[in-house]
Amino acid sequence: MIKLYEIALSGNCHKVRMLLSMLGIPYESVAVNLAAGEHLEPDFLALSPFGEVPALVDGDVVVRDSNAILVYLASRYGGEQWWPQAPVLQARIASWLSTAANEIAAGPNSLRLHHKWGREIDVVRAEKVSAKTLRILDAQLSNSQWLIGDRFSIADLAIYPYVALAPEGRVDLASHKPILRWIADLRGLPGYAGMPGMWS
Amino acid sequence: MIKLYEIALSGNCHKVRMLLSMLGIPYESVAVNLAAGEHLEPDFLALSPFGEVPALVDGDVVVRDSNAILVYLASRYGGEQWWPQAPVLQARIASWLSTAANEIAAGPNSLRLHHKWGREIDVVRAEKVSAKTLRILDAQLSNSQWLIGDRFSIADLAIYPYVALAPEGRVDLASHKPILRWIADLRGLPGYAGMPGMWS
Repeated sequence: MIKLYEIALSGNCHKVRMLLSMLGIPYESVAVNLAAGEHLEPDFLALSPFGEVPALVDGDVVVRDSNAILVYLASRYGGEQWWPQAPVLQARIASWLSTAANEIAAGPNSLRLHHKWGREIDVVRAEKVSAKTLRILDAQLSNSQWLIGDRFSIADLAIYPYVALAPEGRVDLASHKPILRWIADLRGLPGYAGMPGMWS
Repeated sequence: MIKLYEIALSGNCHKVRMLLSMLGIPYESVAVNLAAGEHLEPDFLALSPFGEVPALVDGDVVVRDSNAILVYLASRYGGEQWWPQAPVLQARIASWLSTAANEIAAGPNSLRLHHKWGREIDVVRAEKVSAKTLRILDAQLSNSQWLIGDRFSIADLAIYPYVALAPEGRVDLASHKPILRWIADLRGLPGYAGMPGMWS
């Protein structure tokens, strides 16, 4: 059975839990105790060299990084619906995976780490990145139901958690109507799995 | 003909130029004048909403983000050699694309922006991210010739420029023997295209 190494309150782990749920794939959750330093132990670093959750083990396949795990599961278990073969669609998905790894990490995720968990960050820069990213998401989601157009994809799953959790980083979503519409649509999808304490 | 909107000294643009050269694809380079604010004009923002280079136009297909452009070109023009269909290989590539968008951007790229162009950053954090990332790259490249194993891929192209350019951010690569071996191997590949002023 697939093993998912994770922590409950990580948005990156939530992305993977949502996809596993939507694809109906059973898995074993292995909680990694960050406070006890389990993410820095050799056994875990062998799975995830950056010492980050989530990591996934599927037989002899080991995948680190939430974006990569989404690609793996969609490609291996999802078929054309989840991992379209058209280069233009794979590229559109890849562009939003980059946004998840870069701007979403440096913006709303970083603000949440600061305000919820006390991590020291450059708040002014994070707020600037966050505001710009939300503005661009609003524009995209005014033009289409989902991030890559009229089809739901792992791009939406990659962007969703830290946007939906943005209020925990003191980012008010009230004025972001297209984003709020998209969040509601995503939460209404078959197999949607919530997150402990997630804003709704 | 493909149009690449770019600037000469961007490592992100260099990634795309290398792949176009390796695939033997002719293209038209369109220089974007950042100093004149061309990246913030509506025509360019329509191609690249974040106002970032590179952006690529191929007929009616528009792709923003260097990772996404690599995926698009490899998938559309490269065939199995450049875009392997096996989910585990696509996932391995995706994990390094995330590293390019996250740790490489926040580490060596950020240090180069600071020391070469004067951008204000958190130097201590960037040096920490850079050192950790280079250590993990060394470990990976001690175990395999290329980042995803024994086959060269767009993962190498995505990671390469800002690592090779790290000395411009005052990061000394002399002690990173596996990385230096990998840089030399990459520069020896057929179709390799250099960069103006790139360390060699």
